[in-house]
Amino acid sequence: MKMCTSADSKLIDFMGSKPEVETSFNRVPGQAIKCGFGMQGVCCRLCSNGPCRITPQSPKGVCGATADTIVARNFLRAVAAGAACYLHIVENTANNLRAVGQGKSGLTIKGAETLRELAGVLEIKETDPAQQAVKVADRVLEDLYRPRGQQMTLVEKLAYQPRFRRWQELGILPGGAKSEVFDAIVKTSTNLSSDPVDMLLHALKLGIATGLYGLTVTNYLNDIMLGEPQIATARVGFSVVDPDYINIMVTGHQQALIGVLQEKMVTPEAAALAGRGGAKGFKIVGCTCVGQDMQLRGAHCREVFAGHAGNNFTSEALLTTGGIDLVVSEFNCTVPGIEPICEQFLVRQICLDDVAKKANADYVRFDCNESAAIAEKIMHAALESYIRRRGKVQVDIPEHGYDDAVTGISEKSLPKFLGGNFKPLIDLIAGGKIKGVAAVVGCSNLTAKGHDVFTVGLTKELIKRDIIVLSAGCTSGGLENVGLTSPGAAELAGDNLKEVCRTLGIPPVLNFGPCLAIGRLEIVAAELARALDIDIPQLPLVLSAPQWLEEQALADGAFGLALGLPLHLAIPPFVTGSKLVSKVLTEDMEQLTGGKVILEGEIVPAAEKLAEIIEQKRKALEL
Amino acid sequence: MKMCTSADSKLIDFMGSKPEVETSFNRVPGQAIKCGFGMQGVCCRLCSNGPCRITPQSPKGVCGATADTIVARNFLRAVAAGAACYLHIVENTANNLRAVGQGKSGLTIKGAETLRELAGVLEIKETDPAQQAVKVADRVLEDLYRPRGQQMTLVEKLAYQPRFRRWQELGILPGGAKSEVFDAIVKTSTNLSSDPVDMLLHALKLGIATGLYGLTVTNYLNDIMLGEPQIATARVGFSVVDPDYINIMVTGHQQALIGVLQEKMVTPEAAALAGRGGAKGFKIVGCTCVGQDMQLRGAHCREVFAGHAGNNFTSEALLTTGGIDLVVSEFNCTVPGIEPICEQFLVRQICLDDVAKKANADYVRFDCNESAAIAEKIMHAALESYIRRRGKVQVDIPEHGYDDAVTGISEKSLPKFLGGNFKPLIDLIAGGKIKGVAAVVGCSNLTAKGHDVFTVGLTKELIKRDIIVLSAGCTSGGLENVGLTSPGAAELAGDNLKEVCRTLGIPPVLNFGPCLAIGRLEIVAAELARALDIDIPQLPLVLSAPQWLEEQALADGAFGLALGLPLHLAIPPFVTGSKLVSKVLTEDMEQLTGGKVILEGEIVPAAEKLAEIIEQKRKALEL
Repeated sequence: MKMCTSADSKLIDFMGSKPEVETSFNRVPGQAIKCGFGMQGVCCRLCSNGPCRITPQSPKGVCGATADTIVARNFLRAVAAGAACYLHIVENTANNLRAVGQGKSGLTIKGAETLRELAGVLEIKETDPAQQAVKVADRVLEDLYRPRGQQMTLVEKLAYQPRFRRWQELGILPGGAKSEVFDAIVKTSTNLSSDPVDMLLHALKLGIATGLYGLTVTNYLNDIMLGEPQIATARVGFSVVDPDYINIMVTGHQQALIGVLQEKMVTPEAAALAGRGGAKGFKIVGCTCVGQDMQLRGAHCREVFAGHAGNNFTSEALLTTGGIDLVVSEFNCTVPGIEPICEQFLVRQICLDDVAKKANADYVRFDCNESAAIAEKIMHAALESYIRRRGKVQVDIPEHGYDDAVTGISEKSLPKFLGGNFKPLIDLIAGGKIKGVAAVVGCSNLTAKGHDVFTVGLTKELIKRDIIVLSAGCTSGGLENVGLTSPGAAELAGDNLKEVCRTLGIPPVLNFGPCLAIGRLEIVAAELARALDIDIPQLPLVLSAPQWLEEQALADGAFGLALGLPLHLAIPPFVTGSKLVSKVLTEDMEQLTGGKVILEGEIVPAAEKLAEIIEQKRKALEL
Repeated sequence: MKMCTSADSKLIDFMGSKPEVETSFNRVPGQAIKCGFGMQGVCCRLCSNGPCRITPQSPKGVCGATADTIVARNFLRAVAAGAACYLHIVENTANNLRAVGQGKSGLTIKGAETLRELAGVLEIKETDPAQQAVKVADRVLEDLYRPRGQQMTLVEKLAYQPRFRRWQELGILPGGAKSEVFDAIVKTSTNLSSDPVDMLLHALKLGIATGLYGLTVTNYLNDIMLGEPQIATARVGFSVVDPDYINIMVTGHQQALIGVLQEKMVTPEAAALAGRGGAKGFKIVGCTCVGQDMQLRGAHCREVFAGHAGNNFTSEALLTTGGIDLVVSEFNCTVPGIEPICEQFLVRQICLDDVAKKANADYVRFDCNESAAIAEKIMHAALESYIRRRGKVQVDIPEHGYDDAVTGISEKSLPKFLGGNFKPLIDLIAGGKIKGVAAVVGCSNLTAKGHDVFTVGLTKELIKRDIIVLSAGCTSGGLENVGLTSPGAAELAGDNLKEVCRTLGIPPVLNFGPCLAIGRLEIVAAELARALDIDIPQLPLVLSAPQWLEEQALADGAFGLALGLPLHLAIPPFVTGSKLVSKVLTEDMEQLTGGKVILEGEIVPAAEKLAEIIEQKRKALEL
């Protein structure tokens, strides 16, 4: 079978040896011929007069909608869907924290410091941690549920002040986040808004709501419930799968749901249960962002977390090892391609959230008040699946991955590592040892040169230019599995960065974990800007989501633009059919927020463009 | 210029005489070649690996999504968007009622009886109407804003009980309506749900939320603020435009917003203001559903409401008369095609809701606490536009429409007209004088044979078969403008129905007004079922949205299916690429709710199928 390539050659070799399994890699060639209208965003199927497609001969849809209107509608709706996904996560996470505070959850308060700090930021008077947890959760939920006409109250408290003021000037401070999403959906419906500029500004509002709530607040709340990240090394790749254990592969983004399972799996009862099947115990194998998040907090789940195996498009291959006994998914990015593979390898699937229900999976609704029972149910299902399948299915775990990936980096652990603050990093940047910072974030896709090919290639080009790379999202999984987050990768960096890495014993790519950690990167950026007394757009810091895949990435991107950052994409979103929308995103946005989209589909030119921007920003700062 | 046809021959003749104006009619031929993938719903553009298209050679998207998953996702997202539109309307309407209760709005309580009744249904203790209004609004808003895990409290109070119990059995009672929409958007995002059946059940939940809140509650609240419908005759068509007045054309669905303007326009100051431009006064010319709603309540706005000119795709032609001086829009269906025509005819546009912002219009945010100032602003803008354009632009108002369209029919005015209850109608049905009831509702589109062609053709075929037709939505506008809601249309009915119409002095088509009035039809159905002590699916009552256009129509349709009604569509929604989804909608649904979709693209066979169903239902009832 033909298949697309990957930056991870061992993965490709492994899948090459399994012709009986069809994965997403195999389906790329069959979907290689793309619809030009769809690619450019000029196809509208909002009504039964359609689908309408814009051509030079038919420059408007039946209703009169122009390419600008159609493109802006499609784009805003995608951003809104992406924002909705993150906001769904923070809502569930806040409900979990509330339950923790009320003593109803299987989780406890592990990040008391974060809780205290957050309670302080939100000006919560209570001093009892349980009370603080309830209040914090309530404040978040109140904001999420405000009507659109009421601004959210935490934005000012969470945002970097110069940014907040700019957003205020631009009139893009979001009202209640769920209502902002809701009205974006209304706005993009048949014969509602036709104003592309208004729709793009709405996308920025959604970006702010996504960034501050969906990302940052989710991180804070998870830090409270699951423990703060601590810098350490970790094993990554398929080799983390130990066939002597009952292996539960997790996919999704809602780690608080998996956290409950994690707590239950360390009990003696769990060990006894696993023993009934002849296994050494239960292990969680990380996949997609929830795995990245567990890895980040590895210090708090050493016993049960086998390690992070890989990103979204690694999941089908991971199942092909035969070493997985149960899939527990609670959100995306759980590709439907795993479904037939689970059948093929007799792997049972359990979904904990109906928004992410897989067609052939069992649905067990997660209820934080019933978490113990749910965890038990999952362990029993895993045991049963283990007993049923082992012996019948070949287990073939390839040598794959690294033992020394550096993990646990956060906005708090990094300055701690640097001696208490960001000054050493700033000094290295000011002194030119590090030219600047590139956040290489977001998803993995299969079409920007192949699986992780652009991400890995761009990262190598950036570090070669003494630009330190911070990663978050599926890029992290890709970079880890080719060794770029291991200290040895220093050898691939430019001379100056290499020296820095060797001295500090760090890799040239600092992995912040899941895509949610884009929120952590924003805090790092704000801290650097604060230390220099400048605004974020002035920093020698660039953003790239080279292999963005999902609507969520577009919402993240909207946050990046609201922050005023240059944002590189290897594949454009479906907007190129509108000159106006393209111009606003790639040019005019700079006058509004300071940010802009940079489209560059080739690796070296992309690295050069980003390095050039960093150089310009350095000059402006007289560095 | 080529153009599509219309059931309204005078409209076609008029536009034929205006080759200098391009309308939606002219754009149909240029968009006649449709994308087969889009039509069948098997095109997915949720991620950057796409767009993916399902073919026999490529039966899955890159991620592994099947046609069933892709179709169900696209469909649920469309239903969710449609539901969101209606829920946006009811939210704004409830906020207006709240302001009325608080004495902050330009509106008053005109429908004290409806308020009292509704307060009773909602078990509100207050007896003071102002207090009742606030409480009613609060109860509605509370339900809309509940989390998805909490069922809405008014569903049980508003629904017909046998239906409520069925929905409970099926597990499709909706949680907080806005959250149900929100999570449907999450569910249909990249790599979230892949379960088509779960997504179709979610669509039913959205249908229930749409029907009971978006439609029914909106009607109740508008009845309270704007006055209850009273049966009367009305003028319809372009002839309602009197060039001696300053004419404000309204489009949208949020009549409470226009209601404020209406109140202000009857003041002596308004007359004096119009006089300054040499006009006799201000008039509102109805277009789209907001016009239908004003017509329905014509008894309460005789002085300012010129009459209803036509439906969605009549709006461009209406502007071409030159008689319109200002467009005030507050929602869809305001086609973008009007924008260049407004420029051509120097007509200013004001939008009152940013979700419906037209690209070249002024945006005046509607705030119920500032309604007087907004009304003044609109009148001044209309005056200024009138002065600027008259004399420069040709005014050519064709002879068009009818003077005796029967209007004001509602779930309350109809039984009142019949002598106090529905018994006379039930007796006529039982006796076979009326075979059954067909609700011909929804939009107008240009592709099911042409503008209103299917709607008018089907209606004629139905009445010929002694089936009485109830209309709501843009179908009403189409049927009115060809005379089918005038008593003279009795001549087109079958002998039995003709006799009934002549005896009662009614037309064979009873026009309930805007699409929101689909909620009124549900109440009529429930009242008929209650009188017969049966459930709604047992009634000899069929639903057709022959020329459905928008996502809102799909949400209405989901309500119809939840009610258990047979629902005819001349054009399928974009679902035919999935056998599973098609089968659930057209067959299996009958086992769930009693309803099903009937796809029939030819007029006579459609009428025959509906008549056949009515015959079967009669038989089952032993009629």
